[in-house]
Amino acid sequence: MRLSQLLIPTLREVPAEAEIPSHTLMLKAAMMRKLASGVYIYLPLGKRVLKKIEEIVREEMDRAGAQEVLMPAIIPAELLKESGRWDVFGPEMFKLKDRNDREFCLGPTHEEVFTDLVRNEVKSYRQLPLTIYQIQTKYRDERRPRFGVMRSREFIMKDAYSFDVDWDGLDASFDKMYDAYCRIFDRCGLKYTVVEADSGAMGGKDSKEFMVTSSVGEAVIAYCDSCGYAANEEKAECTVEHKSDEEIKPLEKIYTPDVRTIDELVSYLDVKSDKFVKTLIYTYKDKVAAVLLRGDREVNTVKLANLLKVNENDIDFADEETVRSVTGANVGFAGPIGLKGDVLLIADAEVPMMKNIIVGANETDYHLKNTNYGRDFKADVVSDIRKVVDGDKCPRCGNPLKLERGIEVGHIFKLGTKYSDALGANYIDENGNEKPMIMGCYGIGLNRIAAAAIEQNHDDKGIIWPMSIAPYHAIVVPVNVSNDAQRNLAEKIYDELSKAGIETLIDDRDLRAGVKFNDADLLGIPIRITVGKKASDNIVELKLRRDENSIELNYDEVVNKVKELIINSI
Amino acid sequence: MRLSQLLIPTLREVPAEAEIPSHTLMLKAAMMRKLASGVYIYLPLGKRVLKKIEEIVREEMDRAGAQEVLMPAIIPAELLKESGRWDVFGPEMFKLKDRNDREFCLGPTHEEVFTDLVRNEVKSYRQLPLTIYQIQTKYRDERRPRFGVMRSREFIMKDAYSFDVDWDGLDASFDKMYDAYCRIFDRCGLKYTVVEADSGAMGGKDSKEFMVTSSVGEAVIAYCDSCGYAANEEKAECTVEHKSDEEIKPLEKIYTPDVRTIDELVSYLDVKSDKFVKTLIYTYKDKVAAVLLRGDREVNTVKLANLLKVNENDIDFADEETVRSVTGANVGFAGPIGLKGDVLLIADAEVPMMKNIIVGANETDYHLKNTNYGRDFKADVVSDIRKVVDGDKCPRCGNPLKLERGIEVGHIFKLGTKYSDALGANYIDENGNEKPMIMGCYGIGLNRIAAAAIEQNHDDKGIIWPMSIAPYHAIVVPVNVSNDAQRNLAEKIYDELSKAGIETLIDDRDLRAGVKFNDADLLGIPIRITVGKKASDNIVELKLRRDENSIELNYDEVVNKVKELIINSI
Repeated sequence: MRLSQLLIPTLREVPAEAEIPSHTLMLKAAMMRKLASGVYIYLPLGKRVLKKIEEIVREEMDRAGAQEVLMPAIIPAELLKESGRWDVFGPEMFKLKDRNDREFCLGPTHEEVFTDLVRNEVKSYRQLPLTIYQIQTKYRDERRPRFGVMRSREFIMKDAYSFDVDWDGLDASFDKMYDAYCRIFDRCGLKYTVVEADSGAMGGKDSKEFMVTSSVGEAVIAYCDSCGYAANEEKAECTVEHKSDEEIKPLEKIYTPDVRTIDELVSYLDVKSDKFVKTLIYTYKDKVAAVLLRGDREVNTVKLANLLKVNENDIDFADEETVRSVTGANVGFAGPIGLKGDVLLIADAEVPMMKNIIVGANETDYHLKNTNYGRDFKADVVSDIRKVVDGDKCPRCGNPLKLERGIEVGHIFKLGTKYSDALGANYIDENGNEKPMIMGCYGIGLNRIAAAAIEQNHDDKGIIWPMSIAPYHAIVVPVNVSNDAQRNLAEKIYDELSKAGIETLIDDRDLRAGVKFNDADLLGIPIRITVGKKASDNIVELKLRRDENSIELNYDEVVNKVKELIINSI
Repeated sequence: MRLSQLLIPTLREVPAEAEIPSHTLMLKAAMMRKLASGVYIYLPLGKRVLKKIEEIVREEMDRAGAQEVLMPAIIPAELLKESGRWDVFGPEMFKLKDRNDREFCLGPTHEEVFTDLVRNEVKSYRQLPLTIYQIQTKYRDERRPRFGVMRSREFIMKDAYSFDVDWDGLDASFDKMYDAYCRIFDRCGLKYTVVEADSGAMGGKDSKEFMVTSSVGEAVIAYCDSCGYAANEEKAECTVEHKSDEEIKPLEKIYTPDVRTIDELVSYLDVKSDKFVKTLIYTYKDKVAAVLLRGDREVNTVKLANLLKVNENDIDFADEETVRSVTGANVGFAGPIGLKGDVLLIADAEVPMMKNIIVGANETDYHLKNTNYGRDFKADVVSDIRKVVDGDKCPRCGNPLKLERGIEVGHIFKLGTKYSDALGANYIDENGNEKPMIMGCYGIGLNRIAAAAIEQNHDDKGIIWPMSIAPYHAIVVPVNVSNDAQRNLAEKIYDELSKAGIETLIDDRDLRAGVKFNDADLLGIPIRITVGKKASDNIVELKLRRDENSIELNYDEVVNKVKELIINSI
């Protein structure tokens, strides 16, 4: 393709809307443009990258024995009402009505449609196992679309669903997908970590996320260098220290006028925050829970939701009025002793191990000192509900965990019978008994792979594409197109590379060499062939985008050298 | 792929919902299933066919120099309001709002989005010409979805848009697309006719449709065997007979009590319907028009809309009250003489050529006899506004036209400056002047190609796929899988064909041979290799789906023979 003809409006300036490198570079390198918040147009280069990722995903899905289908994006409300998810998604799901006032949504995911298809078409154990997938456009009306295609409202997903006769079958299907995902991300040139993820309150027994480590990732990963344990922040188990051997002291009530927050207490009492236990009042589905947590810890709302057997978005901080009615005090003085009404008291697993702690007194302007679990109060439930922190002990081997940020590019999940029960997707087994199918689901965000690849492969000049997903393999740059020798040799090389099946660009624009080199670097084409002054001697320069140095080659060596480079790097 | 593992729930019965062969066969052959009215799931075989069509379309677009992009399906309302089409589409367009109450539609087509992109990114004549395309999902909330994927509400379209500096440039871009379309339909194995189509009241100078002739087509084509003229029903020009040489007679008022329709008049007066002129009262945008037309003719509302410079759906029959007020009579007695109020009187071009005609008297229970154009009344406009009929004279050569039904699979259109004017898509020419880009648009329905191919290629046993878009090239059928020799030889052939890159199915199911042959015929796989009793002598049978007879082959000839058959038929 000729750059003079390609729709490639590269930008010199960093676009104001972009906050992270991949977003900036996808705009600057003319891969995409924004049409509306979280809604993007893919220009020719961006579309080529997406298509390459799509082909890798398809090949690996097919190789794993999955069968490709295509579902509609508009889904009748009835199906999501049957599974109970019509209301669960909330404003994140785009809803619409057709001309006959029938309700639809734009599928944020397709569990119901696949389950519906399979319950209609698969009746016997003989037809199982079955894994089907699609590469299709999904819609999520994100509250805060950002980071370009990292979190967009219309995006392309590969979603696969497996149907098995039993849990062992699911394990096998799951493992096949796990392997396929590894091959996909390897082939896309990504460095990734597989982490344990939360499988939700509603069922499912195993859930893993594929995380591309990146400082701009929205997710946090906890991992252990010693034993290899890795989990996302929501899932990461927190270990508990041994019980403090401090001597138990007598309970004291202390006057703490207008001192409400842990920070205020720390400075008012001059005691470290880990000597406090905070009492957080939550509401969930018209009920109230009080959560006890060491002063320097944060609540992991996913763990809390799982414990309460509700969805995360069913949980909210209690309003002032509720706090007053259960504590009998102003906000800021809640504590575990003497809560009024029907309040579920939950203690993080650390709390019973602490001694002589400071808590709110449930009385305005007072706290209690030297409170002790067991002697002064007991919780209804003791459970791990805090967020992991850097240096926490690994739940497997006890060595310190590290935290890192990551971009979630894939998620595989043992659903179990959640949807087959809800929709009645049953099969008849060998003995004529009806049983629910055991399901798994497996998702990959295609656009996000492109962005993640850029996050991991760029420098201050631009993108450095992995060969496998580069929009073109090579770019031929005649330094001066007005020079006949240069132009002719460049055209000849372009022609021969193209004929050899190598995806090649030629920068035939009448621009200064510096501008052309800058564009080539920005676009991130892996191999650059520069045709300059030595063109008259048939000598050209070959440079890899990822390397500093270039080599000189005789013109007739170019095609073989480029072929070799491509084969060695895919 | 093994049929024992493939998700291929073929049906024995004709599904009640299906009215035409392609719809029936796509359901029976397990290519697709309905999720909602006009909304379909593509099963593995259907998806494969779509993908093959997609690849052919992409290759030919790329070969024609078009560049692939990808647009969102959700389009901000502002863009369609800018072009004026937000209200034009009416209920056919799915509309929705996001969580911030911002309006979007699901794109029924993408002129505005492409024009918006190009006005933002292309500034100079140096960047033109440019043709960009996408293969993407479109949404149209059809009033009456039917015929399966022939008229569905979610479908895949290739839409391309060209941008040129002048009309000559547009002609060249248009011709390239014309040629690409011919190659696409040729490669898909379709027999098609290119017809002239209406280009609308709003501009555009040339519009052609690619029609697959088929008795189930929703469109009507008029064509001339002598000179090659072909147009769709809306566009087909009607010629006018010479003026009748009948002697003019004196006007008479006749009593026709309760005789309102042409049929009633014909039988009451015992005169042929072509001696009458009917007067049809229409409303359009708060105005009234009366249309005069020979009694046996029908109004072509597209021609009428173009004449009135409105959209077709702006026109409606006047209600009873309006008819009464403009005619002063009950419905059924309208005529050209003495209409009251501001009524535009339009005569079809035939009317002035007729003599001594019968018309309504604008008086309840009366008609006028021996009315003559010129002597008794004159129209404000005389124009061709009737529908073509079989046997009409060809507007080019005068020989009789024939009518045939067709399925529209492609449409190419010289838009001109309609959208570039509305959205301000201008470029700077060589002299520094700002000019509007000259646009064309080019659409192909991918799903409809699949259905049209089935309409043209099937028999009472099932589909007969053209090789180029068949889901698989060959199917190996061991007659009896319990027989070791048969099963082993079949597996060997399956293996070798697959390794040779031939897309092969093997029917490894333990079913009766008859069932397997029926399924193979239903699926329409072009080449069938039957491994039966002579397996022990390494002899197998090769049969083409489109032929009656089979040939015997030695096992080791199979791969080469199959390869040869494929190469010769793609």
